[in-house]
Amino acid sequence: ASNKSLLILPGDGIGPEAMTEVRRIVNWMETNRAVKFDVDEDLVGGASIDAHGIPITDEVVEKAQNVDAVLLGAVGGPKWDNLDFSIKPERGLLRLRKDLELYANLRPAICFDALVDASSLKPELVSGLDIMIVRELTGGVYFGEPRGIEDLGNGIRRGINTQVYTTPEIHRVARVAFELAQKRSGRVVSSEKANVMESGVLWREEVIKIHESEFPDVELSHMYADNAAMQLVRAPKQFDVIVTDNLFGDILSDCAAMLTGSLGMLPSASLGDVDAQGRRKALYEPVHGSAPDIAGQNVANPIATILSYAMALRYSFDMPEEADLIEKAVQNVLAGGMRTADIMAEGMAKVSTTTMGDAILREL
Amino acid sequence: ASNKSLLILPGDGIGPEAMTEVRRIVNWMETNRAVKFDVDEDLVGGASIDAHGIPITDEVVEKAQNVDAVLLGAVGGPKWDNLDFSIKPERGLLRLRKDLELYANLRPAICFDALVDASSLKPELVSGLDIMIVRELTGGVYFGEPRGIEDLGNGIRRGINTQVYTTPEIHRVARVAFELAQKRSGRVVSSEKANVMESGVLWREEVIKIHESEFPDVELSHMYADNAAMQLVRAPKQFDVIVTDNLFGDILSDCAAMLTGSLGMLPSASLGDVDAQGRRKALYEPVHGSAPDIAGQNVANPIATILSYAMALRYSFDMPEEADLIEKAVQNVLAGGMRTADIMAEGMAKVSTTTMGDAILREL
Ligand SMILES: CC(C)[C@H](C(=O)O)[C@@H](O)C(=O)O
Ligand SMILES: CC(C)[C@H](C(=O)O)[C@@H](O)C(=O)O
Repeated sequence: ASNKSLLILPGDGIGPEAMTEVRRIVNWMETNRAVKFDVDEDLVGGASIDAHGIPITDEVVEKAQNVDAVLLGAVGGPKWDNLDFSIKPERGLLRLRKDLELYANLRPAICFDALVDASSLKPELVSGLDIMIVRELTGGVYFGEPRGIEDLGNGIRRGINTQVYTTPEIHRVARVAFELAQKRSGRVVSSEKANVMESGVLWREEVIKIHESEFPDVELSHMYADNAAMQLVRAPKQFDVIVTDNLFGDILSDCAAMLTGSLGMLPSASLGDVDAQGRRKALYEPVHGSAPDIAGQNVANPIATILSYAMALRYSFDMPEEADLIEKAVQNVLAGGMRTADIMAEGMAKVSTTTMGDAILREL
Repeated sequence: ASNKSLLILPGDGIGPEAMTEVRRIVNWMETNRAVKFDVDEDLVGGASIDAHGIPITDEVVEKAQNVDAVLLGAVGGPKWDNLDFSIKPERGLLRLRKDLELYANLRPAICFDALVDASSLKPELVSGLDIMIVRELTGGVYFGEPRGIEDLGNGIRRGINTQVYTTPEIHRVARVAFELAQKRSGRVVSSEKANVMESGVLWREEVIKIHESEFPDVELSHMYADNAAMQLVRAPKQFDVIVTDNLFGDILSDCAAMLTGSLGMLPSASLGDVDAQGRRKALYEPVHGSAPDIAGQNVANPIATILSYAMALRYSFDMPEEADLIEKAVQNVLAGGMRTADIMAEGMAKVSTTTMGDAILREL
């Protein structure tokens, strides 16, 4: 097998612990599937701030530019909360997204059968739930200029951010959503606030154009973002693919992930365009955050990070069989009754991060 | 009793039907509590577009400026969806909010005891739920300039909106939240995306200032908006008062309202400052929308609109006893087993809009 290059950025909080379990699986792949991975590991977020004073170095960004895939743990924690905005841990992640132009963030909200009861929703509303949220990730209010805080005199200040989208930015992320829908149930809901924001009007108009000219076979509908939040809570199974902007996507995808009760299980992929060498820039990370409150205690759920690695195998390394192996191992372990604390339920066996990793390796 | 002036704007969809039931209660108040109301009624939203070509006339705005309270039904519907942005039904409501400077939108998310089972969440998570969301209503991306869609040439367009907050805008809405918290459980969660947006950094800093200098007795914490959406779904009872900006408030309050299962029951108040005559500008409206799909069928739930009127009695007319009367009448009717379609459950009696109105009047 050819060389595969993977950059691992464990980051902060529970990121490193979860990543330790991933590395064991990477090693297993080398030994048992004879796939040689060039694995490099480096710092991002608070860990990078502690070492270099900034949340990501140019060197790490360049490394990320030149690998097949980046696997990230999580960033942030109270230790760095009072730092200046421009050097907070989050800026490391945001710079990676922007510099690699990872414009399409795929966030599945899946309810794992074994975890239906972990949801705060009634079981019949979430069992079998399988939503794919496609969030635009390099535009909108996250990166729009002008931005900042200005002094107006007399002790008055003004904070500004700019929500901005161009038509090409909308087109490319819409295409990703429609293509995914074609491989799923063929339905896309596009969400904005076109009743209040002109950027939402443009979003809606351009999504309609791509739909009519390139994907007439897909069913498209539109939903204001406030209503989308309501509908996710009321009847999440009505959704297949949801496409939305960076900020609405941030909120709606977290809401959807929490609905499933499987937050500790959900991976995500952030994809860019295919380059001249036929390589698609990609970063994989769990949907959950760095959970500083439980970091270092060996109680975190490593599965979302492990499944992020499986997603990388599937989409960046063209190794669907290996991805299947991991996903099935996870399912079997859950079926066997093992649970980390976040998904613990009556009658199950509560295990540590390491024990969960052991069990998944054993299943492999 | 002195003269009280009330402007009723039924609006679109189920607004007029619900308002018919309110008018019967207004009449009952005159007859039985000897309170003379100057009630005027006028058009807003699609109804105004149909009559005047614009979603609200200067005349109606002026009327609204000069009454003790405005009671609004709901605006919008598919009939007006393809109109130009600047004359859509929603602009009527937005202009009212802005011209009357109704900067504090109070949106209770209460789970009515009788309706616990109507929630999509497990009963133990929502029973007794009582959150107050204080949403900033006249600033942020809803009104920020520059805004619009520009042509960049080569068929490329750009959509822009501006998120902007000044310190006085943040202070006044924060005060409303802290004052409410003092009368409730004394806890405020302020929500923004200070990890991503400078306007959120300013929001957080200024909320902290008001807290430290004026309300040290209240417990203040901060939560990113994406996490707030998650926490609302996971464990809504952790919240007492939530204060947030216009756009996050739009989404979070709808999410919270839907959690309760009592959406058809929830009133809201939008408040401005107290003027020279000691009158606080105020608009009351249900949290739910115009529900065009069920409009005109006599099946809508009028209770949220009726409770909005009760809220007006309490806050704008200083008639707490009368407000109590209405709220108790509603509770009794629900306890008696009557339900409109939206809150229907097994073993209950399904009734029409009119029958629900009849029953509440009978209880009075
Ligand atoms: C950490 C933060 C910058 C980030 C975001 O807001 O995008 C996170 O919430 C996410 O959703 O990945
Ligand atoms: C109708 C619309 C303009 C409005 C808003 O976005 O504020 C509505 O969603 C609300 O929450 O009152």
